[in-house]
Amino acid sequence: MKGKQLAGEKAVEYIEDGMIVGLGTGSTAYYAIKKIGELVKSGFKIKCVSTSTSTTELATTLGIELVSLNDVESIDITIDGADEIDKNNNAIKGGGGALLFEKLVATASKKVIWVVDSSKMVTKLGDFLLPIEVIPFGAKHVYNTLEINGYQPKFRYTNEMLYKTDSNNYIIDVNISNVSNYLQLQEWLDSITGIVEHGLFLGSADMIVVGSEDSCDTLFV
Amino acid sequence: MKGKQLAGEKAVEYIEDGMIVGLGTGSTAYYAIKKIGELVKSGFKIKCVSTSTSTTELATTLGIELVSLNDVESIDITIDGADEIDKNNNAIKGGGGALLFEKLVATASKKVIWVVDSSKMVTKLGDFLLPIEVIPFGAKHVYNTLEINGYQPKFRYTNEMLYKTDSNNYIIDVNISNVSNYLQLQEWLDSITGIVEHGLFLGSADMIVVGSEDSCDTLFV
Repeated sequence: MKGKQLAGEKAVEYIEDGMIVGLGTGSTAYYAIKKIGELVKSGFKIKCVSTSTSTTELATTLGIELVSLNDVESIDITIDGADEIDKNNNAIKGGGGALLFEKLVATASKKVIWVVDSSKMVTKLGDFLLPIEVIPFGAKHVYNTLEINGYQPKFRYTNEMLYKTDSNNYIIDVNISNVSNYLQLQEWLDSITGIVEHGLFLGSADMIVVGSEDSCDTLFV
Repeated sequence: MKGKQLAGEKAVEYIEDGMIVGLGTGSTAYYAIKKIGELVKSGFKIKCVSTSTSTTELATTLGIELVSLNDVESIDITIDGADEIDKNNNAIKGGGGALLFEKLVATASKKVIWVVDSSKMVTKLGDFLLPIEVIPFGAKHVYNTLEINGYQPKFRYTNEMLYKTDSNNYIIDVNISNVSNYLQLQEWLDSITGIVEHGLFLGSADMIVVGSEDSCDTLFV
């Protein structure tokens, strides 16, 4: 837990007064958002774009001003977590189910900082399942395509109900531990009708802050 | 109007008793669905998968049994309209806003029949605008990307409100009259985060039935 807190809080040092900031989702982004709440209380005038309902709730509680992604030209800095990051700055994100909005916010950001504890840094992606957001209509056919191609798909459930994203889509988690060409995988997933987005983020961070028990490493990529 | 009716009704001749049939959306599919209603009244046991709320309403009125796309292994025949079809069997679809479900149903179909009146057959796509279905969150950024790349995007409105698809997404219509490489365009659109699907259907029909004032041509492709 300490590593997450150190990383989340460290990244907030890069935020300047007047900036538009993207707020990620998850247990490490949580610490960044709490710290941003302190900045706001101290007088910083910043506007934030949220990536999920849960982050919106947290930010609102902390008195952080939120704006819609559609109402900003671009975002200055986005701070977000990741589930796994390899040595080439490729990540699996979306364990929390917010991958679509996270990717949209990252795409609109001038600078993206990923904050993780050191357990998330891996030599190869794939211990973590890759989340894929799919349109409910016909989702079983997308599932079948993924299964036939060896990705061991599993529909995500919560409380015995199919999990629904903030866009009312389903999540199918797949095993990519046998994949080595992520670009090819990305192109294939993009081409499948019914897949809205997936949690592969290839080389999209500008900075990675890795927290451990008592220190932080900042990687510029 | 006569051409649409002739084409729509002609395609229904390919439906056999016991089949699972995909029902398209729009003014030409309308005539096919009406005719399928007559088949059902005459005793045909067929189950149908609908591509839109409006088609579901029409089919229900006609006593046609509907099943979910998720509940069938595959569809035997799908009959659907198109807005423009070129000589290489490439089409723009989705003027009615149902492109996502239409593409999902087509993908799951063993045979796809497009039904159109002769005015829809063109030498080159692009007089008709290409509909693109986008996630509302951050849709303005997708719009900007399309604008910067010269596609003259327009958000679709209905009754002065942003049009919402059956999946609660927006439609952006773009001008592709200057495009010659449709495969390249398709790959580019597929790669953009926030685009759920688009109305380019490249070579995906098995048969095209073209109706004119007094006759029908059937093209096997």
